[in-house]
Amino acid sequence: MKTHRKLLWFHTRERTEIVDITAEVEGEVRESGIREGLALIYPMHTSSAVYVSDSDRSLTRDLDALLARLVPRGAGYQHDAADPKGNADGHLKAILCGHHVTLPVSEGRLDLGTWQRLYYAEFDGRRDKEVQIRILGE
Amino acid sequence: MKTHRKLLWFHTRERTEIVDITAEVEGEVRESGIREGLALIYPMHTSSAVYVSDSDRSLTRDLDALLARLVPRGAGYQHDAADPKGNADGHLKAILCGHHVTLPVSEGRLDLGTWQRLYYAEFDGRRDKEVQIRILGE
Amino acid sequence: MKTHRKLLWFHTRERTEIVDITAEVEGEVRESGIREGLALIYPMHTSSAVYVSDSDRSLTRDLDALLARLVPRGAGYQHDAADPKGNADGHLKAILCGHHVTLPVSEGRLDLGTWQRLYYAEFDGRRDKEVQIRILGE
Repeated sequence: MKTHRKLLWFHTRERTEIVDITAEVEGEVRESGIREGLALIYPMHTSSAVYVSDSDRSLTRDLDALLARLVPRGAGYQHDAADPKGNADGHLKAILCGHHVTLPVSEGRLDLGTWQRLYYAEFDGRRDKEVQIRILGE
Repeated sequence: MKTHRKLLWFHTRERTEIVDITAEVEGEVRESGIREGLALIYPMHTSSAVYVSDSDRSLTRDLDALLARLVPRGAGYQHDAADPKGNADGHLKAILCGHHVTLPVSEGRLDLGTWQRLYYAEFDGRRDKEVQIRILGE
Repeated sequence: MKTHRKLLWFHTRERTEIVDITAEVEGEVRESGIREGLALIYPMHTSSAVYVSDSDRSLTRDLDALLARLVPRGAGYQHDAADPKGNADGHLKAILCGHHVTLPVSEGRLDLGTWQRLYYAEFDGRRDKEVQIRILGE
């Protein structure tokens, strides 16, 4: 059994931004030398999330709009009273998006569906954030 | 350490349909010969999701109704302008449902709670879709 | 490869209650003797969920309020007609929160971000509930 750990850094220009990170994670899977196993893609923060979706980028704008409707920013959250950053919406959106993913690794690659891409959703950006890539297998 | 990979195929009659797949996944766990470990149940598409819920089937209709209320079909999504299938709601619902699950395997079986069942939620059906079963353990 | 399995029990005083379980899960990781791997934290019930969020407890109240708004209790669910406990909202909230999490284990500890805590969200409490800790690694 082998394990592999790596931190990837992200720094988005916008407060809310969704980035396709498939290629970077693919690169890390190759780097690990693990051929068969599971890859955990795990944000080390709670106002960002990693999720799997379709390759069409317009869906990232639809998700952004949906989350803004379900969890509007500054809607009287208790956390915003305690924290002047006013990012309660970001923490709550990350929970609704599932925060992290576990992906299959086969023949040394991420074993995704044809149209699947891996996205990093930043809900409180403009600063350094890290995502842990953790691979277990052989 | 052993790993096991299998694709299960689904083809629902309805556009939106929720199917209990516990028995099929249980069968695959037995087939794998893995006694102790983790099982990733991973849809290879982004308009379907796998989730764990109660055995009472009326809850699947409640979930369907809840998702239709939170993410109504054809509500001006940018993805629908790009894709004539009009399935943006399906992609977004799959994200809210968490897309995939990781389950414990013990003594050669899915180690679920008494009332837990595993569901495949199809949000853009009437065509072939596949779900990857990936088991890691010994 | 080693695997470790343990059930933790919870019994909340309130019907809906969110409990910080980081220390208990940390203790179980140490107990397992596993240094590098993945930890699945898996509720054996479908009206509770485990999720990762910020250390500020006011966010648990914000999440509770958000879920009560998105999935109001007793809003004509079919499951409530079948089950006098009236806990359909609890089952649906657990799905939206992602139900279970997979966490990295490094150097014998949960490898979380600085401000991350692990929460148990009970949506139908006042009775015994169990959460399975399942660790795979070496």
